[in-house]
Amino acid sequence: MSKKKQIVVGAMILANGTHSASWLMEEAQPSASTSIEYYRAMAQLAERGKLDFFMLADTPGAPTDNLQAWSRSPSYTNVLEPITLLSAVAGATTHIGLGATASTSFFEPYNLARQFASLDHISHGRAAWNVVTSANDYAARNFGLDRLPPHGERYAKAREFWQVVEALWDSWEDGAFVYDRSACLSFLPEKLHTVDHKGKYFTVQGALNIERTPQGRPVIIQAGASDAGRDFAAEVAEVVFGPSGTLGKAKEFYGDLQQRMGKFGRHPDDLKIASAITVVIGESEQEAHEKLEGWQNLIHPDVGVFRLGQDLGTDLSDLPLDQPVPEHRIPKSSNFQKAFFDEITEMIRERLTLRETARRYNRSKAAFCGTAAQVADHMESWIEAGACDGFMISFPALPSTLRDYVEKVVPELQRRGIFRTDYTGHTLRDHLGLRRPENRYASSIVSA
Amino acid sequence: MSKKKQIVVGAMILANGTHSASWLMEEAQPSASTSIEYYRAMAQLAERGKLDFFMLADTPGAPTDNLQAWSRSPSYTNVLEPITLLSAVAGATTHIGLGATASTSFFEPYNLARQFASLDHISHGRAAWNVVTSANDYAARNFGLDRLPPHGERYAKAREFWQVVEALWDSWEDGAFVYDRSACLSFLPEKLHTVDHKGKYFTVQGALNIERTPQGRPVIIQAGASDAGRDFAAEVAEVVFGPSGTLGKAKEFYGDLQQRMGKFGRHPDDLKIASAITVVIGESEQEAHEKLEGWQNLIHPDVGVFRLGQDLGTDLSDLPLDQPVPEHRIPKSSNFQKAFFDEITEMIRERLTLRETARRYNRSKAAFCGTAAQVADHMESWIEAGACDGFMISFPALPSTLRDYVEKVVPELQRRGIFRTDYTGHTLRDHLGLRRPENRYASSIVSA
Repeated sequence: MSKKKQIVVGAMILANGTHSASWLMEEAQPSASTSIEYYRAMAQLAERGKLDFFMLADTPGAPTDNLQAWSRSPSYTNVLEPITLLSAVAGATTHIGLGATASTSFFEPYNLARQFASLDHISHGRAAWNVVTSANDYAARNFGLDRLPPHGERYAKAREFWQVVEALWDSWEDGAFVYDRSACLSFLPEKLHTVDHKGKYFTVQGALNIERTPQGRPVIIQAGASDAGRDFAAEVAEVVFGPSGTLGKAKEFYGDLQQRMGKFGRHPDDLKIASAITVVIGESEQEAHEKLEGWQNLIHPDVGVFRLGQDLGTDLSDLPLDQPVPEHRIPKSSNFQKAFFDEITEMIRERLTLRETARRYNRSKAAFCGTAAQVADHMESWIEAGACDGFMISFPALPSTLRDYVEKVVPELQRRGIFRTDYTGHTLRDHLGLRRPENRYASSIVSA
Repeated sequence: MSKKKQIVVGAMILANGTHSASWLMEEAQPSASTSIEYYRAMAQLAERGKLDFFMLADTPGAPTDNLQAWSRSPSYTNVLEPITLLSAVAGATTHIGLGATASTSFFEPYNLARQFASLDHISHGRAAWNVVTSANDYAARNFGLDRLPPHGERYAKAREFWQVVEALWDSWEDGAFVYDRSACLSFLPEKLHTVDHKGKYFTVQGALNIERTPQGRPVIIQAGASDAGRDFAAEVAEVVFGPSGTLGKAKEFYGDLQQRMGKFGRHPDDLKIASAITVVIGESEQEAHEKLEGWQNLIHPDVGVFRLGQDLGTDLSDLPLDQPVPEHRIPKSSNFQKAFFDEITEMIRERLTLRETARRYNRSKAAFCGTAAQVADHMESWIEAGACDGFMISFPALPSTLRDYVEKVVPELQRRGIFRTDYTGHTLRDHLGLRRPENRYASSIVSA
C-alpha cells in the first residue's frame, strides 16, 4: 500500500478565538490576549495534536473611533506583538511551527528580516512569516500614513519588501561562520554577500548580522485572493491560504496558482495550499450548528453592523436593521480583503436584511459544523479531489474548539492514514514537506 | 542599625564576552551568539547572583568592508536580535530584569513601543530599553541612510522618538480593560488616549494596541557622555551608564546629571547612575592583571588598529605600528561615542606607539583587575563616595567572568550588607527602587 497523501494543518490563533464574540463565551479567560502562559498552553495543545504550525493573526494598531462597537468586540485591541510572543512560546514547545503575521507596509525590511531570522534560530527552524500587505487605516496612521495605499501599490511594495528580506536572509552562505581559532578566522569573507538594493520603496545596502537560519529561510505564508494577490502568492509563498467556499472554487484556485507559479519558474511542490476553514465540532451535526448559532447570537448588533461596514469599506450604521441593504451601497471595489468583501456583497445581493447579514457574517462562510467524523470526511474529500494540500483552521472559541479538533478529529485523520501520528522531522519545512532552499550564492559543486 | 544603601548591578552581555578577543578564549563556545540555550544559561547565572538586570548590547548591521579585521573579531557580526532573544529568555528566568539595546535611528516608534510593551507583559514587568542614538555607518545603510546623521541631530530625533514611544505606552490608563461580559463591555472608552503627534521626524496618530504594562512603562536605560547626551539622560533616563575613570569624574557626572534633572522637573530618586566597569577577578591582584594581559595579547594587530580607527573615526592602518600616532591624525570631534574617542586621544597624546595604543585599548580604561574582595572594596567605596548608585558591569569573557562575579563578589557584597541576598520584589522597577510611573492621563482621585 502506498503511503497516502498527508494533510498539512495550521492553526490560526487570535486571543480568545477568531469569533468576534469569543471573549463573551463562558470558557473565555479575561486578559488571555496579553497572557503568555495562555499562548504557551494553546501552542502546546496544538503541538499535542501534531499540527504543522501555530499562527498568530495580527493588526498593528488599536481602533480610535467607533469605540462603542469596539468595546463590545475587542479583537486586536489588546494583544501581545506576534514576534515577541512566538519567541516566548518557542521554549515551551519543541516541534510545532511558529508563524507570525507582519505587514510589509509598516516595518523596516532589515528589522523584520533580522527578527524572523532570530526566531528561526531561537526555535531551531520553526519560524514562518505570514506576509500581509494591508491592515486598516487606523493602523496606517500609526506609521505616518493618512490611510492605506491602494491595493495595487500595496502589492508592489510588498514584492519589493520581500525581495529585500529574502536577499538579506541569503547574506551569509551556509557554513560561512567557521570560528577557527587556530587561524584566527571566525568567518570566511567570501561567503558574505552584501545586498545592494535601490528600489522604488526601499534602499538597503548591507548584510544581515545573523548567519543563515536552520531552515535556510523562514517559511513564507500568504493569502492572495485578488489577481495581484494570486500573482504575489505564486511568486513568493510556500503556504497559501486557499479560498473557503465551494470545492469548485478551491480547485480553480489550486490550478490557477500552480499555473501562475510557472511564470516565476517555480515547481508546484514548493507551495502548499491550505484551505481556510473554521471548524465547529459537536457530538452531532445538529449540536455543532446550535453551538455556532449560539455564538452568532452573542454578537451585539452594534458590532455586527460595524464589522460589515468595515470589511465592506462603507458605513452601514444609518440603515434600518430589518430591511435589505440597498445594492447601491456596495462600493465599486474592495480596498481591504477581497474575500471578505465578496462574501458580504453576495449576501446583500441575496436581499437579506441588515440584521440577518450582520448575524450571519463571520468572515468565513466556510464554518464547517459537524461531528469529528464529518470534519474528517470533509478534509479527506477535499484532499482527494485535489482542492488543497491541507487546511488553515480558524478556531472560533478557545480552548474548546482547538481541544475538540486535537482530541477528536486528529485521531480520526490518523486512523485514516492521512495525518502524522508523530512529527518525523524537526523543522517546519520538514513537517510541510518543503525543501530547504539553497542560498542563491551557493556554488553548485558537483562531487565526482 | 539603619539599612545600608543597596548597590544596583546590571550585566552587559555580548556573545562570548565584551572583550574583542573573547571568541578566541579557551572557554568560548563556537556559535554562542546564535544559541538561545547559551543566553538562557547566562541569564540564569546572572539571576543566581541576584543581579538587577541582564542587558544585551547591539548594533543593527554586519560590517561589509574591512572584512580581514572583522573576520578576526566577529563582535556583532552574527548575533540574535535582542528583543526576540529576551522574549525567549523571559520564560527561563523569574526575576532578573531584561534590557535590550535598540536605536532610535532605525525603528518605527510604534513597532518599538509595541515590542517593548509586549516584552514587559511576557516577562511580567522586567523589560528595559537601552536607548541608543547611534551605531555605525554600515548600520545606517541598512535603513536607507548613506551615513549616520550628525551627533546633535541624532539626539533631536531620539528625543522625539522617545516622546512618541512614552505617549504610546500611556495610550490606555491602568484598568482600562474591564472585560465585563454582563455589560458587553471589554474596555472603558474614556480610558483610551490617542496620540496625535506631528513632529520633525515622526507622524504618529493612534493608540498602542496593548494595555498598560506591569511596570507602567519599561525602564529607560541610557548612556550619555556629551553635553547633548547628558541632557537627554537627565530628561528621559531611569538608569544611566556613568563614566569609567576617576572617582572625581564620576562624582562630577553624578552631580551634573542630578542638577540637569531639575531642568526637566524630575526628582533625583527617579534616576540611578550605574558606573560602567569591566571586572577581571583573580585569586590575587597579580593573577587578575595577568589574565587581562593574556586576553589583550590575543587581539590580532589587524583588529587592534582597525578598532582604534573605528572608534576614533579615522583609518590609522597606513601608520607604522611601532611609532607614536601623530597628533594631527586625531579628528576634530567624535561622531561616534565620545567616551571611546576621549580614551584613545588621551593615549595618543601620551605618545604611545600605535601597537601599544591598540594593545591597551579595550573600550574601557576602567577594567578593574583584582581579587573579589578588592572588587567589592572598589564598588563599596564608589557608592560611599556618592560617585554612583551601582554598576553596569561588562563581562569580558563568558561564562567565567560572570561566574566569578556571581560566586565570589556577590557573597562578599552581601556580607557587607550592600547587596540583596534575594529579590524582594518582582519587577525591574522593584529591584531598582524606581516608582511605577503614573499614566499621564490618570485622574488624581483623592479618597476621603
